[in-house]
Amino acid sequence: MNIFDERESDIRAYCRVYPVVFDKASNARQTDEDGKEYIDFFAGAGVLNFGHNNERMKQAMIDYIQNNGVTHSLDMHTTAKRRFMERFVNIILEPRGMPHKLQFMGPTGTNAVEAALKLARRATGRREIVAFSHGFHGMTLGALSCTANQHFRAAAGVPLEHVRHFPFGCEKICQDCHLGCGMASIDQLRAYYLDSSSGITPPAAFLVETIQAEGGVKVAGKAWLQSLEKLAQDIGSLLIVDDIQVGCGRTGSFFSFDDLDIDPDIICLAKGIGGMGTPMAMNLVKPEIDRHWAPGEHTGTFRGQDLSFVAGSEALSYFEDDSLMKDVRAKSQIMAEALTALEKRHADLEVSGKGMILGLDIGDGNRAKAIVDACFQSGLLIASCGTGGRVVKLIPPLTIPEDDLKDGLNILITATDQVMEAS
Amino acid sequence: MNIFDERESDIRAYCRVYPVVFDKASNARQTDEDGKEYIDFFAGAGVLNFGHNNERMKQAMIDYIQNNGVTHSLDMHTTAKRRFMERFVNIILEPRGMPHKLQFMGPTGTNAVEAALKLARRATGRREIVAFSHGFHGMTLGALSCTANQHFRAAAGVPLEHVRHFPFGCEKICQDCHLGCGMASIDQLRAYYLDSSSGITPPAAFLVETIQAEGGVKVAGKAWLQSLEKLAQDIGSLLIVDDIQVGCGRTGSFFSFDDLDIDPDIICLAKGIGGMGTPMAMNLVKPEIDRHWAPGEHTGTFRGQDLSFVAGSEALSYFEDDSLMKDVRAKSQIMAEALTALEKRHADLEVSGKGMILGLDIGDGNRAKAIVDACFQSGLLIASCGTGGRVVKLIPPLTIPEDDLKDGLNILITATDQVMEAS
Amino acid sequence: MNIFDERESDIRAYCRVYPVVFDKASNARQTDEDGKEYIDFFAGAGVLNFGHNNERMKQAMIDYIQNNGVTHSLDMHTTAKRRFMERFVNIILEPRGMPHKLQFMGPTGTNAVEAALKLARRATGRREIVAFSHGFHGMTLGALSCTANQHFRAAAGVPLEHVRHFPFGCEKICQDCHLGCGMASIDQLRAYYLDSSSGITPPAAFLVETIQAEGGVKVAGKAWLQSLEKLAQDIGSLLIVDDIQVGCGRTGSFFSFDDLDIDPDIICLAKGIGGMGTPMAMNLVKPEIDRHWAPGEHTGTFRGQDLSFVAGSEALSYFEDDSLMKDVRAKSQIMAEALTALEKRHADLEVSGKGMILGLDIGDGNRAKAIVDACFQSGLLIASCGTGGRVVKLIPPLTIPEDDLKDGLNILITATDQVMEAS
Amino acid sequence: MNIFDERESDIRAYCRVYPVVFDKASNARQTDEDGKEYIDFFAGAGVLNFGHNNERMKQAMIDYIQNNGVTHSLDMHTTAKRRFMERFVNIILEPRGMPHKLQFMGPTGTNAVEAALKLARRATGRREIVAFSHGFHGMTLGALSCTANQHFRAAAGVPLEHVRHFPFGCEKICQDCHLGCGMASIDQLRAYYLDSSSGITPPAAFLVETIQAEGGVKVAGKAWLQSLEKLAQDIGSLLIVDDIQVGCGRTGSFFSFDDLDIDPDIICLAKGIGGMGTPMAMNLVKPEIDRHWAPGEHTGTFRGQDLSFVAGSEALSYFEDDSLMKDVRAKSQIMAEALTALEKRHADLEVSGKGMILGLDIGDGNRAKAIVDACFQSGLLIASCGTGGRVVKLIPPLTIPEDDLKDGLNILITATDQVMEAS
Repeated sequence: MNIFDERESDIRAYCRVYPVVFDKASNARQTDEDGKEYIDFFAGAGVLNFGHNNERMKQAMIDYIQNNGVTHSLDMHTTAKRRFMERFVNIILEPRGMPHKLQFMGPTGTNAVEAALKLARRATGRREIVAFSHGFHGMTLGALSCTANQHFRAAAGVPLEHVRHFPFGCEKICQDCHLGCGMASIDQLRAYYLDSSSGITPPAAFLVETIQAEGGVKVAGKAWLQSLEKLAQDIGSLLIVDDIQVGCGRTGSFFSFDDLDIDPDIICLAKGIGGMGTPMAMNLVKPEIDRHWAPGEHTGTFRGQDLSFVAGSEALSYFEDDSLMKDVRAKSQIMAEALTALEKRHADLEVSGKGMILGLDIGDGNRAKAIVDACFQSGLLIASCGTGGRVVKLIPPLTIPEDDLKDGLNILITATDQVMEAS
Repeated sequence: MNIFDERESDIRAYCRVYPVVFDKASNARQTDEDGKEYIDFFAGAGVLNFGHNNERMKQAMIDYIQNNGVTHSLDMHTTAKRRFMERFVNIILEPRGMPHKLQFMGPTGTNAVEAALKLARRATGRREIVAFSHGFHGMTLGALSCTANQHFRAAAGVPLEHVRHFPFGCEKICQDCHLGCGMASIDQLRAYYLDSSSGITPPAAFLVETIQAEGGVKVAGKAWLQSLEKLAQDIGSLLIVDDIQVGCGRTGSFFSFDDLDIDPDIICLAKGIGGMGTPMAMNLVKPEIDRHWAPGEHTGTFRGQDLSFVAGSEALSYFEDDSLMKDVRAKSQIMAEALTALEKRHADLEVSGKGMILGLDIGDGNRAKAIVDACFQSGLLIASCGTGGRVVKLIPPLTIPEDDLKDGLNILITATDQVMEAS
Repeated sequence: MNIFDERESDIRAYCRVYPVVFDKASNARQTDEDGKEYIDFFAGAGVLNFGHNNERMKQAMIDYIQNNGVTHSLDMHTTAKRRFMERFVNIILEPRGMPHKLQFMGPTGTNAVEAALKLARRATGRREIVAFSHGFHGMTLGALSCTANQHFRAAAGVPLEHVRHFPFGCEKICQDCHLGCGMASIDQLRAYYLDSSSGITPPAAFLVETIQAEGGVKVAGKAWLQSLEKLAQDIGSLLIVDDIQVGCGRTGSFFSFDDLDIDPDIICLAKGIGGMGTPMAMNLVKPEIDRHWAPGEHTGTFRGQDLSFVAGSEALSYFEDDSLMKDVRAKSQIMAEALTALEKRHADLEVSGKGMILGLDIGDGNRAKAIVDACFQSGLLIASCGTGGRVVKLIPPLTIPEDDLKDGLNILITATDQVMEAS
Repeated sequence: MNIFDERESDIRAYCRVYPVVFDKASNARQTDEDGKEYIDFFAGAGVLNFGHNNERMKQAMIDYIQNNGVTHSLDMHTTAKRRFMERFVNIILEPRGMPHKLQFMGPTGTNAVEAALKLARRATGRREIVAFSHGFHGMTLGALSCTANQHFRAAAGVPLEHVRHFPFGCEKICQDCHLGCGMASIDQLRAYYLDSSSGITPPAAFLVETIQAEGGVKVAGKAWLQSLEKLAQDIGSLLIVDDIQVGCGRTGSFFSFDDLDIDPDIICLAKGIGGMGTPMAMNLVKPEIDRHWAPGEHTGTFRGQDLSFVAGSEALSYFEDDSLMKDVRAKSQIMAEALTALEKRHADLEVSGKGMILGLDIGDGNRAKAIVDACFQSGLLIASCGTGGRVVKLIPPLTIPEDDLKDGLNILITATDQVMEAS
């Protein structure tokens, strides 16, 4: 029996989907210890936007270590942190006229969400948060209360309180959906909140993903999001955008909402912002909200990760000009065309997504799993998401070479055709 | 105005205590951008047990990056993870006859605690957790409910439920304490739980630190911990030891409880286990408890941090023989002697601690702050903890050179004498 | 200063609406201590269905007291209780083929609701209850969590948990309502509950009033209620009908749902069933649900009120033949005609209701108050309900003489015309 | 099968202890339908302080009904309510210099407690309530959270939150108790509340019974209660005395705390105050607390029970002079002597109590049940209380004739001797 079977917790999961031992990785390829190469359409669940072992970042990290740069600094000032902050403000915030402050916390997405919830509650003096069906926001108790999936919720062992879920406003109403999504749901929410006998009261915040990545690559409608923001403003609630998986360039622009004409009060970031897969999380907070914090009220031992600041500073170079984002839009086109062809060929399939995150809804978790398994056998790492794992999610590194992308798509197409025809 | 003042969240804290910008660090010394050196008695809040930029680890990390090792792997298998697991089992668990499984999660201590709470609740079918006054377990909602300090609790914005606090069993009853700590409190707890009209019912778990580091360096009595374990066994509750700050060699042995003759069901680890300050968290869980997990029930994007596996594997070499631990015991002696002299000189002072974590209770947060500030001016990084920050905590790297240790102690002695005499 | 001003709690309310001291009362008339008579369109908030000091009941109560009947018996057996139970089963349950068991509890409606919630949670092993916007179910913490009105909820001082409110399915969609009531809301609920990523799970029970009396005399649609029952059955939830205010003959039949073709699992009764205004509460529970109780799990000192059993037994005589119910239907007609005329005359008014509970929605709490005040001056006791008190509620004793009814209606018509024209 | 077996809920309990059908009752005797008489040492669980069908009250109630007095008045003013209030103020409050206001609510003890909790939370802006182990405060969710007995708590089906239980300060530490009661517990509480890292914060109120009647007739120590009041004052919490079962003359004075030199902010009353067993509940509230209510925030259909006002006004005549209270003290002596003799004869027995509520702790629920059954066979109604029903409780009407008292005691003595010798 190997050490994993013998000693790793039964909770382990992805290693069951990809039952090999990985050894090396570079850009959009991973290699197992037997030397077999895999094209990576998974990218560390959306972390590795700039590929494995990105050359620009590798060298910067090595130099930093070699020169005895500070690696762990909590919320002390460091030169590495200053460089990251200055670049982030110059490259991302200032061009957009965003006055937001940067808050660093324990370097996980769930921690960013927890901090945002605390601050929203503090700033408004309210307790309740509104999250949305199919949303995913993390695993720690506060964030888990916002996560909709019952598989995760059931593990809490305590009631998940102070959060209310409402239907998400999909851009495209799903084939078999009767949740009442869309603009009507915002009208209904407004009516609820204006009615003092509805049984509910206005929340501290609405917490929303512009694209529900884990929830099945569901894209929010632009008008719906704008109405949600309007409602939030009208009833004194904050708008928090969880951009952890789909921010940082994934949709063809740094923020996933850059083309949506909304102005969130708090934006949660993690995953990609650390550059090369080392942990980092950060909230962007409007100054008038941020000032509700007292020093040290939400701490975290690893909130100053300088290797992530170093790699993340390099990552920002991809946003100094439009070349990568142009690539993303081009590759998005290639991906969409491949999937649309599949969609046309198989009546049950449904494609969704934007930029370089696309979902192929297989309609059934078992068939999706069969496709994922077949891809793996053929050298493609891809994963499923959504309820019961029914949606195959394509989220390759943004830097994937076009050849790898096309090879991967071909593997996926073959696998999908096979599975769909067999069933 | 600099970028920190302009754009970093008002929540920033340590940078207010040490108002410089750090640039380099090596073992027990940090250097600011003006070239001023500081001896480090803080060690990243207990993370940097093996010093800044530990030479063994630096090279291993650089090699790993240069060779395109996988840096981010969720819970897929990697060769780096295998090496870490094998070494951890061989060096730490097997010699102690510990059958525990290793669970990796989001790489923060709070995440380890959250996972432990979920599992304890699942395994017992109970909801309540017992934690202890002055305990610190993290900032996310589930862990925060276990953290006792009102400064942190008040930031939650929601009621902190399903956790009950009881007095901690200090080895040495504090000078001015009437909380009813000690063995009597265990007898009382037992009586409570056996009485079906007490208003309380047996908990899923008791969550305890053997030394409350953030809580003021309060050391639990050995007999008290053994009684607590016995009580837990008798009423079907788990015993969870949060060894995040004081495990990993801090007390002169890998686990803080190695000499306490207890056998925890779950042990939470983080901070030091990643070796050089990159994030990592891990729970050790008895197999009969661990089997209550279903795959993927508690996830975390950054739960496979291979740079931390690489550095952490090197860190384990310090436990292959007794030389570092012998050093720790010797340096502990030096530290204790210095503080005991202070304690004798100033009636209000009280020393506590074990191994290389010691606390000097100044009895008052303002005076403690004055000492910390004076130390900083003289080139020593040290911080305070406990209620109102009244305890100056000494937690230098275990690898600190004896000269640095003595120089640091001299700075502290001088600062303390000055402040105590002035007040 | 009188004793009321001096010593009665500031919480007193109806005495502020009717600032006199009442002394006598008979059927539909109350007399104050100065001898002024008032027609009663309020009937003790729906308690006095059979009028004040109903002659049949008066004598039975007097005889019972004179003969030293047991007045207070908890849940011991008494001859008076046996008579009540036998008559209730024979006259009400058996003709309807209802197998329900009778549970007596603390003699208030809120207590009946609390018992129903406990039992539903026990029987299903679920925690959540679904109640509806504008619903009213009582003031104790469990029932209050189900009550929708924020005026009442805000007095709790703790979060009201484990209950979720959804829009009520009004028979007639209100003029200015956008809550999304009606059949669509049931479809949406069904979709929610069938979707394991919606963020919600099937409840222990749906708690519903067929007519929301306090909520503004909102009548549930028959098809909506039937769909709700179907949904409950499909997802394993109980259907609880709170018939406290509109049961016991108010709608022209004993149960308010007699003509709705639904079969509730639990029916909460109180108010009218005690006959003459002495307290009593009772749940009717299907035997397969009831068997989940262990003896004595929900007690209440006053759960055996024999004077109420005596008067309540007499009240049941009104259901031995159809004469009173025929009267109710006839008087309902008179009432409806009067209000419909008003509705036609004043664009803003809206009439709702069924049987002898009708609501006149004035659209504004201040105008409604002005009407109530004018009625009082003219010798009619009537009250308002609904959000902000905007609905004038007509709920006279079922036994009101036709002359009193018409006189009362005339007073109301005059007052309404005056107020509406003045504004 | 009779109607009770066929149709009464399985929750029925006392009828299982006394399996007969009662028909008549007078003072301290109940008669079943076969004509068998029973001496009553139970008094409706403490309601019937003035006996069944008290002659003074019977006639007053009959006259009131015959004269068409208002029987049901919510919180409108009535002449009957005015008389009750005036008499209560004159006879009870003014002689004691108590400025308290009178609040009427749904006529059950649990409702009084719920109102008190709401007001304490409102007035202090705090959420938590402290109640005590073995305390009993009612069955609705808010009050149930304060009730300590797990048998009742387990029926809630939801977590019982926002209440914390601490050990009760028994006057006499129980033979086998290790709960840590007494003055030490108050010192510990004070230390907790003054320590901002204890994990708890000062409560809205301490809710306490001076004698825990249902909890096993445990009498609070005078010094403990005074310390509790002092602690409450020091930390800004209210002191609420639940005098529902032991107030109204039971201990030889109107309030159970008349000789304890404490001054509660809120006093909950019910049970005996309605005189003859018809429901009534009332809180006495200091004016500066009461003013936090807005009109109508805690309502209740049956909050104006005029038959209870009428009988309750008569009951107050027993407090116009000292004759009944003198009797109570004399009969208390007779009871205590009888039980003390038993206590001396049987090593396991323990007597507790004060005035005319005494407990005989049998140490075991089964033996206590055997005694209760044997008493019933011999014509004595008596019940058990405390954890597992181990305490036989003597709580006869205060008006019991001395012969009945002695006859009842003899039956109890014989039954106890028999059972204790047999076991």
